[in-house]
Amino acid sequence: MPTDVFTQQQGPDAVIKYQHNLMPVPAHVEFYDGKVQLTDSLKVVATQYTDARLQAGLDRFLKRLQGRTGFTFTQNLTVNTASATIEIRCSKPGDTIPALDEDESYELDISLSTVLLTAPTVVGALRGLETVLQLVSSSRDGYYFPVVKVKDQPRFRWRGLLIDIGRHYEPPEVLKRNLDAMAAVKLNVFHWHLTEDQGFRIESKKFPKLHQMGSDGLFYTQEQAKEIIEYARQRGIRVVPEFDIPGHSTSWLVGHPELGSAAGPYKIERQAGIFEPALDPTREDVYKFLDVFLGEMAALFPDAYMHIGGDENEGKQWDRNPNIQAFMKEKGIPNNHALQAYFNQRLLKILEKHKKKMIGWDEILQPELPKNAVIHSWRGTAALADAAKKGYDGILSNGYYIDLSYPTSQHYVVDPIPADTTLTAEEQKHILGGEATMWGEYVSPETIDSRIWPRTAAIAERLWSPRTTTDIDDMYRRLSNLSVQLEELGLTHERNVDVLLRRLANSKDIESLKLLVSLVEPVKEYRRGEQRPSTMLSPLTGFVDAARPDSESARRLRKAVDDFLSDAPRFQLRASDLEKTFKEWRDSEPALTALIDRSMALHEVKPLAIDVHNLSDAGLEALQFITSGQTPPLEWSQAKSALLNEAAKPKGAVELVVVTSVRQLVTAAAELPQLKTMSSTEWKKHVSAMASGPTK
Amino acid sequence: MPTDVFTQQQGPDAVIKYQHNLMPVPAHVEFYDGKVQLTDSLKVVATQYTDARLQAGLDRFLKRLQGRTGFTFTQNLTVNTASATIEIRCSKPGDTIPALDEDESYELDISLSTVLLTAPTVVGALRGLETVLQLVSSSRDGYYFPVVKVKDQPRFRWRGLLIDIGRHYEPPEVLKRNLDAMAAVKLNVFHWHLTEDQGFRIESKKFPKLHQMGSDGLFYTQEQAKEIIEYARQRGIRVVPEFDIPGHSTSWLVGHPELGSAAGPYKIERQAGIFEPALDPTREDVYKFLDVFLGEMAALFPDAYMHIGGDENEGKQWDRNPNIQAFMKEKGIPNNHALQAYFNQRLLKILEKHKKKMIGWDEILQPELPKNAVIHSWRGTAALADAAKKGYDGILSNGYYIDLSYPTSQHYVVDPIPADTTLTAEEQKHILGGEATMWGEYVSPETIDSRIWPRTAAIAERLWSPRTTTDIDDMYRRLSNLSVQLEELGLTHERNVDVLLRRLANSKDIESLKLLVSLVEPVKEYRRGEQRPSTMLSPLTGFVDAARPDSESARRLRKAVDDFLSDAPRFQLRASDLEKTFKEWRDSEPALTALIDRSMALHEVKPLAIDVHNLSDAGLEALQFITSGQTPPLEWSQAKSALLNEAAKPKGAVELVVVTSVRQLVTAAAELPQLKTMSSTEWKKHVSAMASGPTK
Repeated sequence: MPTDVFTQQQGPDAVIKYQHNLMPVPAHVEFYDGKVQLTDSLKVVATQYTDARLQAGLDRFLKRLQGRTGFTFTQNLTVNTASATIEIRCSKPGDTIPALDEDESYELDISLSTVLLTAPTVVGALRGLETVLQLVSSSRDGYYFPVVKVKDQPRFRWRGLLIDIGRHYEPPEVLKRNLDAMAAVKLNVFHWHLTEDQGFRIESKKFPKLHQMGSDGLFYTQEQAKEIIEYARQRGIRVVPEFDIPGHSTSWLVGHPELGSAAGPYKIERQAGIFEPALDPTREDVYKFLDVFLGEMAALFPDAYMHIGGDENEGKQWDRNPNIQAFMKEKGIPNNHALQAYFNQRLLKILEKHKKKMIGWDEILQPELPKNAVIHSWRGTAALADAAKKGYDGILSNGYYIDLSYPTSQHYVVDPIPADTTLTAEEQKHILGGEATMWGEYVSPETIDSRIWPRTAAIAERLWSPRTTTDIDDMYRRLSNLSVQLEELGLTHERNVDVLLRRLANSKDIESLKLLVSLVEPVKEYRRGEQRPSTMLSPLTGFVDAARPDSESARRLRKAVDDFLSDAPRFQLRASDLEKTFKEWRDSEPALTALIDRSMALHEVKPLAIDVHNLSDAGLEALQFITSGQTPPLEWSQAKSALLNEAAKPKGAVELVVVTSVRQLVTAAAELPQLKTMSSTEWKKHVSAMASGPTK
Repeated sequence: MPTDVFTQQQGPDAVIKYQHNLMPVPAHVEFYDGKVQLTDSLKVVATQYTDARLQAGLDRFLKRLQGRTGFTFTQNLTVNTASATIEIRCSKPGDTIPALDEDESYELDISLSTVLLTAPTVVGALRGLETVLQLVSSSRDGYYFPVVKVKDQPRFRWRGLLIDIGRHYEPPEVLKRNLDAMAAVKLNVFHWHLTEDQGFRIESKKFPKLHQMGSDGLFYTQEQAKEIIEYARQRGIRVVPEFDIPGHSTSWLVGHPELGSAAGPYKIERQAGIFEPALDPTREDVYKFLDVFLGEMAALFPDAYMHIGGDENEGKQWDRNPNIQAFMKEKGIPNNHALQAYFNQRLLKILEKHKKKMIGWDEILQPELPKNAVIHSWRGTAALADAAKKGYDGILSNGYYIDLSYPTSQHYVVDPIPADTTLTAEEQKHILGGEATMWGEYVSPETIDSRIWPRTAAIAERLWSPRTTTDIDDMYRRLSNLSVQLEELGLTHERNVDVLLRRLANSKDIESLKLLVSLVEPVKEYRRGEQRPSTMLSPLTGFVDAARPDSESARRLRKAVDDFLSDAPRFQLRASDLEKTFKEWRDSEPALTALIDRSMALHEVKPLAIDVHNLSDAGLEALQFITSGQTPPLEWSQAKSALLNEAAKPKGAVELVVVTSVRQLVTAAAELPQLKTMSSTEWKKHVSAMASGPTK
């Protein structure tokens, strides 16, 4: 989509309407008439405070700007010169270690004569530079900035992305490019989920058996961890490490079975799910171990917070261990929840000793939990509000589980402080923000970017922008633009789709397969595991891995069908677009069949090809009935409905998300006589109801 | 292209013709009737010698096989089991440090009951595993291996790829994925061109100003170098470092101007070209420096060889330096060549002291050069043969300059020992092999893979396979198949084309741009610099960077036009294909124009869009004349010829390589009356002559 300036004839000082591509939307932004040309003589100057971090940020800024424009800027970065084009006025460095209370605000004033970016800290300046990059516009005449005033700061202080590298390891370069993308959308916390049943992924010099025996050799050295932490710091991003205990700890026990609540030996877990192994909370040795280990990690990870997980421990090992049962009886600990609370209190003391604040999942919220712990909620805003009322800080992840393959719009409407909150202004301060969670059951270095991006940018906007930023269509428009820009940071969410399809087809001629993959999405929630059983050692190179959440084609089709049906009784609007689309589906069939017939790896795609064939027939026939005003025979409607029900069933862990729109057309055709009697309001209401079918 | 088994009815023991995808083609290979099914119960067993390197190789092998097939293999790697499917019989580890005389041979025997891979060394076994991976075939019924016997070893011992990271730095992950690709096509020498006028890219602990001041911070730490060397060793690949002296050394002199032949200060060179700065060969301090520095590097790089460059020193600084002139007079050194020979002899002593053999470019071959030096020839096979006759070992790079954007076929026909060689069998032993050279003037991490791959695979085949392997069509068929397989190693030669186009268009809708880019190639030789001036700091994100050498579309069109014209006087064959192609070009114009109008970065593409419009018109009209038997008016031929001449001119450093084929059609239409009188032999000869036009 091009960026158009809607120049209004109101004189140079009047605020104009301008379709911008900013994401997240700034707190305050006003556009004015006029453009500032961007040429290769651009100069960027930091006129007040500057340091290595800001200079490196300016260097990255210029490289990205060069890459997009093709310009070779003639300047070297300079401080104090008269001929500035972009002037950065930064007051101070900001926190040495990125912190929760970092001032990330900035102001941007682009006038016809200067581009002025003002920020109290280097981090604020970095945030502002991302805004400047998003304002660069292109026309046939060249590149320009619009005249604009921005006054911006985040709504929430904690805006995170969790990456679970326990279930599937991701090499440092994957984390780095994701940190770059985080910075581009102003996220500020990388939550590094470092240990899981399926992998212990950080080097421990104190207890090397942890990573040596618990990781299949796929772990981060402490040097690598330091490099990632510094990479994040350069971008004003905190790194919060998570060591998930007492459950989710199988991989710890492979090298150290003595920490477990049952006799070993233990093996690295290869399945997805919730498992029994848990640390033994009754033995002093376990706390001594944790003191040394977490002390080592506290020195390695400079952030003020340490995440101790604490989720999904069902306590089955505890129930079966007579020593643990005796301990509970002796101490008067009534149940496993209370036992975990006891564990957490011991843990809290250890963290306090090592100068870290504790953060853990909902489950840690037990009566005895001290008020300086932070609740990370997978349960939801209600749980978070409860915690806030009790005086606990909290962050939200419920609603931001990007691994579940839901559309962006669904995450976008989730607000850590919903409009109908009952929290007082004071209590609301306890809601620090939220985190998108990239759980790692089904992601590889090749596919993870496409599970995180671009959807996470909408969550980033929810956490940064004013509550009132809620226009979903506009969000999708800006998201599509941003998605291309993220590629300049090395993100593979777009490019790797074709790579996976070429491998499946063992061929470069994959147009028909690209069409098919654009019509599907991976199944939602955790249904993939049921549909297509696999282990953590299975390849992630199937059709479902090429498929992506939130199909753009499905969204476009939905819009076209809505337009078409709303154009009753003429039924002209978009009719030819729809016909073209369905014919394109139909025409792709021979090529698709040829590919499937040559490749065993595409076998699971065959039923989908048949479904698409049936959908295109149904769509074309329904169009024909509707536009000609003919009512189809009952048998037709019944037959099509049966085919649609079949097409709506997931296959190979993907679902044809375009079924809904075709169903609308088929239903509209069948109900044409009665629809003709409706008012336009009734009609529209009815049309949107038609989308839901009997099976889903 | 699917792999088809041409089953011949000759009983199970008969050799059959089989269209395989092996690249390089083995020394001996025979296919037999029958297939061996590949299932997820595959087991791979090393029954004799094994070690960590072989086990890691088997692990990579299984992961790639899983990725392609979607199988989760149930086994863990095992030694000694009865239920083997693939048995590896390896005798010994091979050289601890990969060496010139490593035994890389292997035998592969796939029968209906077993897959047996026998190799004297682990390196041989690794080479064989790549062959096994290339033999995996797919059909609708599943995956299988053909029944086959392979007895394989390389024709040449030195099969290299030079990557110049001096002019543009490439991060370690780029080198790693290229090492993986090298292993896939059985290359065994990574020539690491570490220093250039534009960058000194290896950490020196002895002289840190070298990398600190000579690299813009873009250098490899010694730890990173060790990691790359080990990564290569794991794949049986030698790492030969190059320190290019006495010329090409500007970056050394930024931190150490005292080594230069003129007074400093020096700045890192930002242009492409040949530059004057050179080390001063007359000063003892320079040799002391080199002794310490090369000693440090000799300890870091374990290979037996060290490359000292020695090329393109024009000696202008020497001519102007009175001290150097006095030194030459005193020592009776007649000219700069002799002075460089003196330098090399001093250098040779230093290398000998540090137990390294010297290798350098042609220029080092001076009368006094000791016989244990190796000549690396950019000049050609004649120079190499001369050196061999004088008793020098040599390797060839002339003809393998992949940075010049020539088609694969042109590199493929270059043989280090041409068929008409005058060398005796004994002298031929001096020809060790060759190296593809990826000079770095115009490559970035985003584009370098597309400049190296897939073309380098054909050079790898030339250096490994028998001299008689020369079928160009078959080479292209196999190359296209291999190209997709290389992507599984993370190579970006395919995927990044779209990335660059999306960035240029700032949009995901780039079909018209993809069509255009498929019709062009970057200009050949070093003409890019003239056409589109840039520095080493310029972005490499233009249309020319998305364009790739050796257009597949142009090759297909050429074939179609040849078929069509050879079908005289009917002119039916491929006529509709050609019409479809030209119409597709024509129909892409509106979308292309819209993209160009929205993006300044696409401005340079505009004239190409006009050319394609003219080419499609000319093609369609010529087809019409020829198929209808009508002779076009003279004005038509003249007008079209003028348009073709315009279209043949490079624009924005790319050229429309399809012009040749359209010219053939236009000329054929114009000459139709006289062509009709020719015999079919004359006709064919004439048709191929028609391709060359007046301007090129």
